[in-house]
Amino acid sequence: MAFVCSATWTAKPGEEETVRAALAELSPASREEPGNLYYQAYQSPEEPTVFRIFEVYQDKAAFKAHVGSEHFAQFGVGQAIPALANNEHETYETLDV
Amino acid sequence: MAFVCSATWTAKPGEEETVRAALAELSPASREEPGNLYYQAYQSPEEPTVFRIFEVYQDKAAFKAHVGSEHFAQFGVGQAIPALANNEHETYETLDV
Repeated sequence: MAFVCSATWTAKPGEEETVRAALAELSPASREEPGNLYYQAYQSPEEPTVFRIFEVYQDKAAFKAHVGSEHFAQFGVGQAIPALANNEHETYETLDV
Repeated sequence: MAFVCSATWTAKPGEEETVRAALAELSPASREEPGNLYYQAYQSPEEPTVFRIFEVYQDKAAFKAHVGSEHFAQFGVGQAIPALANNEHETYETLDV
């Protein structure tokens, strides 16, 4: 079983492009992490301020490595998170991978 | 952009293994579909009756092909869905793939 993080980021009004740009950097960098199995940002066209991310890591340690990475510090903590009105995530386990 | 389906299946009491077994068949078969980009069932250990599936398809047509597939008829409509107390899904668009 692998470790799943399902995040929901809600941008402050007017900060949508700041969050989108951060995700454009975070997505390829996160996929390069040795412990990452999947990283996909997605959105509903009806909710332009809400950014969702589905992430799968080999295990919890790999997720912690992601959170502690340079690119997360720069583009997550440094760029996206200050532009968020709300920041939630839930963790799960995959059933078969 | 690709088409995302995020499904939440809640099993009737006692039907958890029926749903789990259906997903064990649906997962590999769905990943083989030409239009499927990703298919992952996952669960919170604290919610053993709730099964979640994150699915990505090239486009809406590929998602419709999935819903119309033989394996979905057999294991989705025929096995899992009758064993569900609740069956919800939301659709989205990927940001970068």
